Amino acid sequence: MTQLKAKIFEVEQGQNECVLNNLTAASLGLSIYDRVHLTLRGRQIVAIVDFSHHFIAEGEIGLFEEVAKLLDAKQGELISIESLQRPLSLDYIKKKLDNKMLSQKEIHSIISDLMAENLSSTELAAFITAIYINGLSMDETIALTNAIAQSGDMLKVDHTIVVSEHSIGGVAGDRVSMMLVPLIASLGIRIPKTAARAISSASGTSDSMEVLCPVTLTVPQIEAVVQKTNGCLVWGGAVRLASADDKLIRIRNPLHLDPKSLLLSSILAKKKAEGAQYVLIDIPVGRGAKIERIDEAKSLARDFESLGMSLGMTIKCLISDGSSPITSGIGPALEAREVLATFETNEHNMLYEKACQMLGIVLHMVRGITYQEGYNIAVAQMQSGKALQKFREIIGAQGGNPNIKSSEIEIGKLRAKIFSDERGKISHMDNKAISRICRMLGAPSDKKAGMILKVHKGQSVEVGDELAELVATSQTKLDFVLANVPKTRIFELEKIIIDLV
Amino acid sequence: MTQLKAKIFEVEQGQNECVLNNLTAASLGLSIYDRVHLTLRGRQIVAIVDFSHHFIAEGEIGLFEEVAKLLDAKQGELISIESLQRPLSLDYIKKKLDNKMLSQKEIHSIISDLMAENLSSTELAAFITAIYINGLSMDETIALTNAIAQSGDMLKVDHTIVVSEHSIGGVAGDRVSMMLVPLIASLGIRIPKTAARAISSASGTSDSMEVLCPVTLTVPQIEAVVQKTNGCLVWGGAVRLASADDKLIRIRNPLHLDPKSLLLSSILAKKKAEGAQYVLIDIPVGRGAKIERIDEAKSLARDFESLGMSLGMTIKCLISDGSSPITSGIGPALEAREVLATFETNEHNMLYEKACQMLGIVLHMVRGITYQEGYNIAVAQMQSGKALQKFREIIGAQGGNPNIKSSEIEIGKLRAKIFSDERGKISHMDNKAISRICRMLGAPSDKKAGMILKVHKGQSVEVGDELAELVATSQTKLDFVLANVPKTRIFELEKIIIDLV
Repeated sequence: MTQLKAKIFEVEQGQNECVLNNLTAASLGLSIYDRVHLTLRGRQIVAIVDFSHHFIAEGEIGLFEEVAKLLDAKQGELISIESLQRPLSLDYIKKKLDNKMLSQKEIHSIISDLMAENLSSTELAAFITAIYINGLSMDETIALTNAIAQSGDMLKVDHTIVVSEHSIGGVAGDRVSMMLVPLIASLGIRIPKTAARAISSASGTSDSMEVLCPVTLTVPQIEAVVQKTNGCLVWGGAVRLASADDKLIRIRNPLHLDPKSLLLSSILAKKKAEGAQYVLIDIPVGRGAKIERIDEAKSLARDFESLGMSLGMTIKCLISDGSSPITSGIGPALEAREVLATFETNEHNMLYEKACQMLGIVLHMVRGITYQEGYNIAVAQMQSGKALQKFREIIGAQGGNPNIKSSEIEIGKLRAKIFSDERGKISHMDNKAISRICRMLGAPSDKKAGMILKVHKGQSVEVGDELAELVATSQTKLDFVLANVPKTRIFELEKIIIDLV
Repeated sequence: MTQLKAKIFEVEQGQNECVLNNLTAASLGLSIYDRVHLTLRGRQIVAIVDFSHHFIAEGEIGLFEEVAKLLDAKQGELISIESLQRPLSLDYIKKKLDNKMLSQKEIHSIISDLMAENLSSTELAAFITAIYINGLSMDETIALTNAIAQSGDMLKVDHTIVVSEHSIGGVAGDRVSMMLVPLIASLGIRIPKTAARAISSASGTSDSMEVLCPVTLTVPQIEAVVQKTNGCLVWGGAVRLASADDKLIRIRNPLHLDPKSLLLSSILAKKKAEGAQYVLIDIPVGRGAKIERIDEAKSLARDFESLGMSLGMTIKCLISDGSSPITSGIGPALEAREVLATFETNEHNMLYEKACQMLGIVLHMVRGITYQEGYNIAVAQMQSGKALQKFREIIGAQGGNPNIKSSEIEIGKLRAKIFSDERGKISHMDNKAISRICRMLGAPSDKKAGMILKVHKGQSVEVGDELAELVATSQTKLDFVLANVPKTRIFELEKIIIDLV
């Protein structure tokens, strides 16, 4: 077996990769992107070969950080290298390119090679492209979901009833999870919720929850929090639930490829890894939301429900109005404050209503009672303060201050008001424009930045009425937004006469 | 504009890439694989963003070698970074994913973004996969070929008649180019031949030619050789003819994706960049060759010819027997020796016959004479020694010894004979098995290694007859091959009774 001298590069490569001099590669009969076994002191890994003309001499092997770490290799150590056959799963990827059906075994083999770093990002891109063009059958989607679910950690949340909830997203201020988790947990039902951070919005559930307590917990920590309080609200990115999905998303995102089968398997694999028996999925629909048409939402709902059945989960989908923001404060701290205030005051805002209605559906699923009965129970949990108490318990169990009050949550001190220069009725408030402006103000990494909406859809405004207040911690950013963003991008007024010609 | 401190990694990345800390990326609103403009002292490049959790601190930017070189950046210098829109060509790639026709302009935009490093390998993999699944129309293939041809250098070989020749490959010992180029050049026709190195075979034209003279020449050097001798035999990899093609091949090879439109455009773009007016394409067909069926070869030939017409080149294809090796010596030096010996002795072997017949077709194309008249001219050039003299001129012009004799070409001194242990008639000699064994013996990087075939297809053999002789410079490799390779993988005997049951 050939031995090569390690030259370590302190950089992560995103996949297991090693770099050989062209001449070394030729003498080993290796082509670019071929696979090799690397061995050092009994540790063995698979890596993909790249070539370098300049920085790797003959007899050397360049190792990126991940590879060096896995082998525990130091600069200059001798690494054994051995050529590997191309993985069988490449033939299965090719099969999908040729529009043939993959068996359960073949799909598991692709996902397990993906996890073992046996597939390059180029090969995964071909797989995802083939799925985008040729699609996956229901059987293939089921197999893919199971394979992804089993690819990472699984939460152990032994309990008679484990529930989960997910929103397709796209709506500003949709912090319903932060209401729903304490509500459900307060009724003795377990809901171990792993949530995302904002991708393109001003705040994700994890970003807002982090204003109140840590959200980066390990699997045993999550299990302990759920054991104690029945619920949690943690960042999914910190644990490796359904981790094959993260690798697929890394490829999908830059191409903006969201084939339905991957969307379905991505969400449900995470739910299976959370140990959920019942899942409620919120599909917000409307102008500016991810899904704009009701029939599209209904077809997605049917797919979720039938896929759930095959995966051993009871799934219910609801279609909600996703055309305007849920909270009036938008941004991590502003949204956290509004959630906590809603628990404290029981104000019947949209957040309160949506959470109570969704709890009604959950209780219908798990207890067989009517939606109305479920809704009434939700309201009772709110009024009695039990939901707030449970929320405080969860905050405390995750390591935050359980006694925090909404008035104590700090938000940016720099403000600027936006006024209407027209009269009319607000016909549309644009989620994407709101998110973009909040991000320009610093959200989500600046937790205190964002905006407070002062009007709602359908409201009539006069010239000079306040529409929104910008909230920032940086004067430069605030000035930049004020100078560059026309308010009409957020607020549209109903017009009878569109234009004079 | 944000400025970040350069941290340079001495490694080539294969694409322009920079690495940011997740927090820096978040504050700039950048997602993974987003594009940025990097600027330093007036130099500006486009790079693709990757994230690192550990090695890049906030305020730092990791630069790979290519990027550092292009910016002329030193460790610790401040680099300006600015987010870029995703390139329009990504929308065109998406269009092909959605099976829509691309315009000439759109295809040029994809190739020019590829050359400007605006597209990641993931995105290119999606493009190639989409072409594989959805195909390209003739118009799209023409546009792609032109775009690829214009992506690199173009040879300036001003002359009334410029010819090129290409074999689809897959046949062991197919060194016809080394015969044909001197033959053509000796008749005052220009043939600037850029050839490949072996990918999976024991030797490519460049590997064997390199036994006689340097093949790594610059564009001006090539032009000077052709100016002087009318021909050349150089390594295409050393010059950037149709260089977009090399980038596409880097993606295609690991996936084994050879969609016909890419095969066509890859070959013809190189011919256009060579300045060819007339192109002869050899399509070897038969068991073990790349193309196994005659009808497939014919359809490919028709595509070549009609594509050539649209590209302003006269193309003629021939279908040859690709089921067994051309030379008896297989391996870089063994093949070079056989070529030179054929010129010296005028032995009517397969190499001689194939070269003379192909020259007949070339002369029919460029002079309008019959194949037989052309063939007679070829034989006359061989017999008169003019072809050999031209070969020596080319060897000399490229920097080799023009007086070298075939007997002076060194081959491996370690030998092992393989004998038949059956009697019968040789029904098949397998190109792939021969290549594999020669590679195990060290070819093509060990130029002296390979094998000498002692029998030909159709020949009757007795038990104990010599079938082949292995040639090596390493006893270990020779022993390994002898121990591991059953001879039946190379030679198959005709059997009347297949088995007794």
